[in-house]
This record gives sequence, C-alpha cells and structure tokens, in this order.
Amino acid sequence: MVKASPLRAITALRYIDGMEQGKSGDTARFAVAPEWQVDHWLNTREPLSLAVLRGRIVVAVAFQMLCPGCVAEALPQAQRTAASFAAADVAVIGLHSVFEHHAAQGTPEALAAFLHEYRIGFPVAIDAHVDGDPLPATMRTYAMRGTPTLLLIDRQGRLRLNHFGHLDDMRLGAAIATLIAEVAAHPLSETGATGAVCEV
Amino acid sequence: MVKASPLRAITALRYIDGMEQGKSGDTARFAVAPEWQVDHWLNTREPLSLAVLRGRIVVAVAFQMLCPGCVAEALPQAQRTAASFAAADVAVIGLHSVFEHHAAQGTPEALAAFLHEYRIGFPVAIDAHVDGDPLPATMRTYAMRGTPTLLLIDRQGRLRLNHFGHLDDMRLGAAIATLIAEVAAHPLSETGATGAVCEV
Amino acid sequence: MVKASPLRAITALRYIDGMEQGKSGDTARFAVAPEWQVDHWLNTREPLSLAVLRGRIVVAVAFQMLCPGCVAEALPQAQRTAASFAAADVAVIGLHSVFEHHAAQGTPEALAAFLHEYRIGFPVAIDAHVDGDPLPATMRTYAMRGTPTLLLIDRQGRLRLNHFGHLDDMRLGAAIATLIAEVAAHPLSETGATGAVCEV
Amino acid sequence: MVKASPLRAITALRYIDGMEQGKSGDTARFAVAPEWQVDHWLNTREPLSLAVLRGRIVVAVAFQMLCPGCVAEALPQAQRTAASFAAADVAVIGLHSVFEHHAAQGTPEALAAFLHEYRIGFPVAIDAHVDGDPLPATMRTYAMRGTPTLLLIDRQGRLRLNHFGHLDDMRLGAAIATLIAEVAAHPLSETGATGAVCEV
Repeated sequence: MVKASPLRAITALRYIDGMEQGKSGDTARFAVAPEWQVDHWLNTREPLSLAVLRGRIVVAVAFQMLCPGCVAEALPQAQRTAASFAAADVAVIGLHSVFEHHAAQGTPEALAAFLHEYRIGFPVAIDAHVDGDPLPATMRTYAMRGTPTLLLIDRQGRLRLNHFGHLDDMRLGAAIATLIAEVAAHPLSETGATGAVCEV
Repeated sequence: MVKASPLRAITALRYIDGMEQGKSGDTARFAVAPEWQVDHWLNTREPLSLAVLRGRIVVAVAFQMLCPGCVAEALPQAQRTAASFAAADVAVIGLHSVFEHHAAQGTPEALAAFLHEYRIGFPVAIDAHVDGDPLPATMRTYAMRGTPTLLLIDRQGRLRLNHFGHLDDMRLGAAIATLIAEVAAHPLSETGATGAVCEV
Repeated sequence: MVKASPLRAITALRYIDGMEQGKSGDTARFAVAPEWQVDHWLNTREPLSLAVLRGRIVVAVAFQMLCPGCVAEALPQAQRTAASFAAADVAVIGLHSVFEHHAAQGTPEALAAFLHEYRIGFPVAIDAHVDGDPLPATMRTYAMRGTPTLLLIDRQGRLRLNHFGHLDDMRLGAAIATLIAEVAAHPLSETGATGAVCEV
Repeated sequence: MVKASPLRAITALRYIDGMEQGKSGDTARFAVAPEWQVDHWLNTREPLSLAVLRGRIVVAVAFQMLCPGCVAEALPQAQRTAASFAAADVAVIGLHSVFEHHAAQGTPEALAAFLHEYRIGFPVAIDAHVDGDPLPATMRTYAMRGTPTLLLIDRQGRLRLNHFGHLDDMRLGAAIATLIAEVAAHPLSETGATGAVCEV
C-alpha cells in the first residue's frame, strides 16, 4: 500500500517563515491550536470558536483597525482568500487584537464602523482584554509579535502556521490548498479529531 | 482503507476558468498533454520535452515578447512561481508562441535579448512554425486563444489547466499545491505513468 | 508691454473636474475661500487659519480616518505633495470632516492615534460640529459632497479648486505649480491681498 | 511695473535631479536644445524637428523597446502626459535610442509592432546611428547615461531638464506647468525666439 505524504506540498514550497513543516506521518506532532478568548463577535449571528470551526481550514488574520499594514495588505488578502476558496473548506476569520491605542480602536462600535466602510464581510472576533494587560489574551496565548499575524489551522484544529507580517498570495494559496488536500489522505476518523466537529 | 480524493482542493476553489476538475477517482480521465513542437530552446543546456519533465508539475506560460499582458503580468508571475516552489517539484517553462509581428519577435536573437533584459532565467521554448501557418504548431495543437495562456501539467503528464489570460496568484498557488499533493495519494506506480520519467 | 496670462497653464490642462479656470486678467473673479471652522488642531503648535496661511498655496484634503479612499489615495498623495514642494510655497493641511460614524472617528484621541500610525506629519484640523448638524461646519460651508475632497487655495486666499474624489498626481502637480507661478505675474501688492499675510 | 519671476515654481520644487533652475531673469542662460538626429519617424505624417515644435513645450522620452523601466514606467507616464495637457501647449515625443541589442530592437518594423501592441500614439523618432558608433547620435549629443531619459524643452527651444531614470508624476506635472506658465511672462517676441516657430 502506498503511504501518503500529505505535507509534501508544503515542504515543496521554498520558504514560508514559521510554517510548521513535517515529513510523511509527522502530522500527529502538531499541537492543537489553543481556543481563542473573545469579548465580542461581529459579522456572525452566533459566536464562533475553534471547536465549532473544526473540520474546516481556518485562515485567521489578527489585525488592528489602525494598523496600516493590516489595512493595506492583510485584510484585502483575507477578502481575496474568502473569495477564492469554498466556504465549506475554508473559514476566514478576523481577530481584532488591539495592543495599542485602545481608546481609539477598542470599542465594538469603532470596529463595526471600520468593517462597514471597508466592506469586510467575514466574521471578526474582538480579542479579549483581561487583568489590565495591554496585550489581549489570544495574542498573548499565541505569542504574537504584532499585527498583522496570520494563523493557519488545519481541519483537525492543529496550528500549522503562525506568521507575523505579510505572506504573498501564491504561498498562502499553496499552503491552504495543501491543508485542504490533507483531509483526503488523513481523514478525521483516522487522525483522531476530538471535540465538536462540523463535518463538510 | 481510506480512499484519497486528490482533487478535493481544486474543487474547493470557487472558480478557475478552464480548470479540469473531477471527483475522487476521476483523475484517470484527464488526457495526456500533447508533446510540444519546438524550434529552439533558450536558457537550458539541453532541449527539454514533456517526456523529460514528467514526474514534475509543469507550469508553462505561452507568451509573446511584445504582448503587454505577458510582459506586465504573466512573466512576472512565472518568475514568482519559480521562486516559490522547489525546482524538484515544479518546472516553470516559457513557450514563445508568436502568432503576430513575426518579423519583430520571431528570431531567437530578439527573444534572447528580451530574456536578458527582463532577467528571465527559466527555460524558454520557441514554438515551431510549419507550413506557412501564421499560428505556431503547439499553440494550434492546444487550441490556444492567444497570449498569455497558462498550462498546468501534472506529474503524470496530463493537462490539467489550459487557461487564456490572467489567473491570480492565490488560485495559481492553490492549483499547483493541489497537483503537488496528488502525487502522494496517486503515486506514479499506481496511476500508470508511461514514457521516460524523471523521478524526483 | 506684454500682458501676462497667469491661468494659461490651468486652461492648458485637458481636464480637472471643478477647477476654476479663467482667461488672462480674470483672476479677480475668484471668490475668497471662506475661513474654516475648527474645533481642534493636531500636528501644529498654534492654531492655523486661512488668514495665517495667506501668501502660500494651500492644498487641503478633507478626509475621514475611516474613509478607505482617503486612507489609500488622498492622504498618501498629500504626503507626496508635502514632500515635493517647498514649505515656503505650499502648505499641506488635513481637514478631518466627519459626517458619519461620529463615535468611532470623532475624538481627537482617535484621530491622533490614526495620524501617529500613518505617520502623517502635516497639520490637521478637526472640522467643527455645531447645532447637532451631522455635517461639520466647514464641509457644509464648502458644500462638499463627501470625502476625500481636495481644496486648492491660492496665495491671495481665493478658492481655486474644490474637487470631490481623486485627482491624479500629474494634474495636481500641474495645478499647484500653476498657482505658484501666478504670484510672479500677479503679486500680492497688485491684486489686493487683505488680512494677515505671511510673506515668503 | 512688476517683474515676473517665471522660474519660481521650479525652484519651489524641493528637488528634481538635473533640473535646470534659475532666479528671475536668468532664463537667458539656458542653452538651446541641440537638434535631434533622426533616421525615421513613426506615428507622424511628416518628420518633426525641434525647430518645427518650437512654441510648444516638448516632453521627450528616450527609450528602448526592450528596456523594462521604459516599458513599465516611462512610456505609460508619457501617455499620461499626453492625456493630461493640451496638445497646443505640450508635444510628447518618443525617441528610440537603441544602444544595445541592435538586431532585436533596431528596425522600424520591430518598433512599429511594439508601438502598435502598447497603443502608443504619440510621434516616435528613431535616433540615428552613424559611423559604427554603438550609441545613437542624439543620445551621444545629449550625453545621455541610458534609458529612460526625460528631456524637457521650453517654448523657446531651450533644454530645461535632462533626467536619467524615473521622475514621479507630481514633479513632472509641476515642471511642465511651470514651463507653460513662463510663456506669459516671457513671450516669444520678448525673449527672442529664433528659427521656425509654430505659434499656438
């Protein structure tokens, strides 16, 4: 029997900074992505969670509405991602992780106005602030270095990429497609997905 | 045993005009890409052929050196493709398919000057002219509508995409990664690749 | 004696929507730009006014910090303008004219955070709100249709352009240079500048 | 009587590399632009010359059809220039100054095909080759360092800018408008234009 090597495509990429790479059979070593801590959700009827999203690839972009690189590059790229892949396979999520200028960009009202003006239609979570910590909780949990940060989470809920800064469209498209292709060779029942699964 | 569905990622893409898509198990239906007819090769020590390239994904861009869309979009994208994927997995090839202004862009010398100025380092084939046909032979065989045209050929030498015009980087990256991932689930020995194979 | 025709260059432009144009000797017909009504100034030690700025060309861009066209086009263009012309000749001023999402972008703190993140160094005035009018006062006085709006005011304080939307760099550069050139042919002492003059 | 200072706007520009600048009254010091040496003209019914063009601002771009910077930046900018200013004031001219790859880009047929594909409608002169010199004659006369090179020639036929490389649209628009404005203060009859004049 031929053994699949699902990560071949990602290793085939010449370079993605921070991409979790592995050889055939190594996928078990990836850690499950920690659940997000969210104060408020926008653009979604019901609160989401990684548990709810399991079974789909999650492409999450941590941003701040006053971060120029987020506005010029990361958010338009997230919109292109949502337009390029089927929603049944890929969930694009914004994570508003405010770590500076809290008064200016910290309220749901300010963020809602921003999302309206920039016509951002995908769900956006407001990263929770706790205990007077200037860094929001999810940002701290994921040890993010700033915004924008791109997270890729596979169908089994494992964190596969935690990338600070910009990743070009070709590599991002390739990385997402690689994660999509994995499910065939390593279906959920085989790799032991746990928790609530939203089967597609 | 779990049956792989290697085309899942491509069907997961919302839309690629002309992309050959299929369901699990359908890959056998794709036709083998007809061999190119080439007058002259540049940027390669020895002439190439689809037979020689078999085993790698072939990303070929048919262009003309005086075609503005080729110069502004298709060729830079081909350069990004060559920079993004490992050469062991993906071969980027230019196909100079001149169907107009033959005197101005038809000679190997003119093309060599163009490649030098635009710093294009991947191999480029000059599509053969025969029998006074204004259209070159490979362009006619593939029924190309003009330039740029993007061809994607999988590891088994089958034509998977024949796309006239521009394809954005995210979809192209995803399509290539999908073809790369297929080899694991459908290795050469299983799907019956024939002809000379350059194993990677 | 040769009579100057200072507006020749502007009429020589093929088209600027809303550009106040005239023939030789017509410059007297341009109305003096109404004084701005400002709640608060940022990026300047002392409050400015058109009276204070008289003697210099004023390039003012009315914007909102959550207006995508302002952020992507108008404000970067204003920064290029400030970098291209001598400050002794041209004053670039931002006018924050908030007519929607007042809670999100209405406070000096939010605007200050925005200016800091986008590294906008030129003076910015916050257009005054009065009487519960959702439109700020200066925006209403100038009958602006939205943001971004570009105002060009000549050395004599006369409104020469009131342009809604984007104006390309070449036409804007040409329009500013034309106003700069006018001062030679129609110096202040001749055209009867009034009010405080900041001679350059 | 008020004395005009026609160069005020150009000195007001913060920086244009190579721009001939001067104070009021200095314009006489600018040298007359040497006549071009041309083998062949395209996109014009009759051969042009600086003598024929006198009375209009001449914006000339020296280029090669296989020079990437010319194709990507200088020629599109020349098209924008032609679209932005009235033809009665500004003549945009291409100067095909081939100093390398002569076989590939040296023929009128190759250049005609290029102009057709890139939809370049303004007149283009082929810089003359003499005596086996690899550099064409006009390029040598003007001591150009390469392509693209931008020449600005005022209404009196004097060379005002000889700029190697790219000049941004705002500065170019400003420089052209400044030259246009000069004619009012220094009309032809006053500054002693000589040679055949095409009055506008």
